[in-house]
Amino acid sequence: MKLDPVVAPEIAVSRWFNSSVPLSLAALRGRPVLLHAFQMLCPGCVAHGTPQAEKAHRLFRDSDLQVIGLHTVFEHHAAMTPVALEAFIHEYRLTMPIGVDDPDSGMRIPVTMGRYQMRGTPTSILIGRDGAVLHHGFGQEDDMALGARLAAAISGYP
Amino acid sequence: MKLDPVVAPEIAVSRWFNSSVPLSLAALRGRPVLLHAFQMLCPGCVAHGTPQAEKAHRLFRDSDLQVIGLHTVFEHHAAMTPVALEAFIHEYRLTMPIGVDDPDSGMRIPVTMGRYQMRGTPTSILIGRDGAVLHHGFGQEDDMALGARLAAAISGYP
Amino acid sequence: MKLDPVVAPEIAVSRWFNSSVPLSLAALRGRPVLLHAFQMLCPGCVAHGTPQAEKAHRLFRDSDLQVIGLHTVFEHHAAMTPVALEAFIHEYRLTMPIGVDDPDSGMRIPVTMGRYQMRGTPTSILIGRDGAVLHHGFGQEDDMALGARLAAAISGYP
Amino acid sequence: MKLDPVVAPEIAVSRWFNSSVPLSLAALRGRPVLLHAFQMLCPGCVAHGTPQAEKAHRLFRDSDLQVIGLHTVFEHHAAMTPVALEAFIHEYRLTMPIGVDDPDSGMRIPVTMGRYQMRGTPTSILIGRDGAVLHHGFGQEDDMALGARLAAAISGYP
Repeated sequence: MKLDPVVAPEIAVSRWFNSSVPLSLAALRGRPVLLHAFQMLCPGCVAHGTPQAEKAHRLFRDSDLQVIGLHTVFEHHAAMTPVALEAFIHEYRLTMPIGVDDPDSGMRIPVTMGRYQMRGTPTSILIGRDGAVLHHGFGQEDDMALGARLAAAISGYP
Repeated sequence: MKLDPVVAPEIAVSRWFNSSVPLSLAALRGRPVLLHAFQMLCPGCVAHGTPQAEKAHRLFRDSDLQVIGLHTVFEHHAAMTPVALEAFIHEYRLTMPIGVDDPDSGMRIPVTMGRYQMRGTPTSILIGRDGAVLHHGFGQEDDMALGARLAAAISGYP
Repeated sequence: MKLDPVVAPEIAVSRWFNSSVPLSLAALRGRPVLLHAFQMLCPGCVAHGTPQAEKAHRLFRDSDLQVIGLHTVFEHHAAMTPVALEAFIHEYRLTMPIGVDDPDSGMRIPVTMGRYQMRGTPTSILIGRDGAVLHHGFGQEDDMALGARLAAAISGYP
Repeated sequence: MKLDPVVAPEIAVSRWFNSSVPLSLAALRGRPVLLHAFQMLCPGCVAHGTPQAEKAHRLFRDSDLQVIGLHTVFEHHAAMTPVALEAFIHEYRLTMPIGVDDPDSGMRIPVTMGRYQMRGTPTSILIGRDGAVLHHGFGQEDDMALGARLAAAISGYP
């Protein structure tokens, strides 16, 4: 008997940019998904992680990989508002769908960040076609390794 | 007869970070001053110009050069507020004095930016010991050229 | 009826470094092979292409991908001798197998370079498990794209 | 009474590139001189030190600073011959005068390298207008610091 895979927790997003419709992991089941959690004032995200996720979004445009940026604000809440994020997205010319991780009222950590027990930003989470987490990494990722991981997830039909 | 040099316009700052006292060009007369005008959501500033000004601040610490960062917000005003700038300074570990260019109420361009007719960010303005502008550059500057320019300004006693 | 794939031409190597035995595409049939053609005095190879091939060699160490460096000297023959290449390999700490492309006596272009009609260095050629050329690229390659291509070749069992 | 400065040892060069006449510190007295000692197979030189010296050569072209590259071969002698250096200079488009440090027959260390007791490559030596060594550094140098040091040497009339 094969056990069902442990399905990745759903994302909770209070506002979307670069997407006319809300995205959900449930609706994306059957496709691989790369979640890039970042903060617009996190130097490692700005210099490396976020451009890397945007590059993946563009490079795999013809595949059915879905890249999702997730703005997981857990510090400087007054500075990293949706209006500030919108300006950031404009200035950095980001085209991937980006969701604002739902602030958990009164809590420091937003909802999705809590569900995944992320350690900080940037965090990269790769979800396979069957909805299970294939990889969960914190900090800088190597481009070549990420490219290989994404290609393997894309080729991995359930 | 020697003409008086054309003195650089005074800076207008509504709030200071990394300085317990307000700075003014008038009070700094006799010392060379590097003004680095930037915006916290300007990619070229974040990646290059602002770290370069911070490096100059640290490299010439034992000279009497004064490096001043100037947050000249001319776009995305709702995003680049002083509270956002404070978070930016914290995250990027900036230690040079940074002033918020005085917003000209109802105008898009802040006061100092207007006085110097800056074309955008980053802008680098070097002021000599006699108070005159030695150099006014827009865009990315080369580290070696800037180092040479600063050393020349420092050695240039009036 | 399925046609046999066009098999990649065999490599011709006059001397090996970092390999105690000669390698051949015939013997490697069934495994994916990345050929990195370079010259030790080609700036684009030294700065980017050769470190990238070495990185692939290390990153995919646990797969059956075979990375092969090929020193395809087509200019400055008196400078890029095997003894010079040996020093280069030592100084740049290269660990992938590297073959000297067989000089075609009296000809400017060495044998393997001619067989593949390479346009210059760096050239990256990816050969699939069935021995056919999957990709032939000249110039700088993106790390993420290469990682994806290698992973696809590795997952592609015949 | 002011002591005469300790004059920098003369350079010993067996062959010049990019200069139709031999250069000597004696003939350059009165001008500042930047000596960049390198080896064409030293990764830190190729990636950073040598392009930096070339940049200084171009940036200060209108001053009387003299930049001199010095090929101080102390390892892999069979690989880093003058003919190999010539190809290196061509491929990396170096335009500064470059001298081959005179091999001390039977010795590992060439003559100039020995006179200056250099510790390896890259080494950067700055000589003032009075012929005295102003700075002797081993390893990577910061562009901004070097620019400042060169400007100070240029402005320092004896």
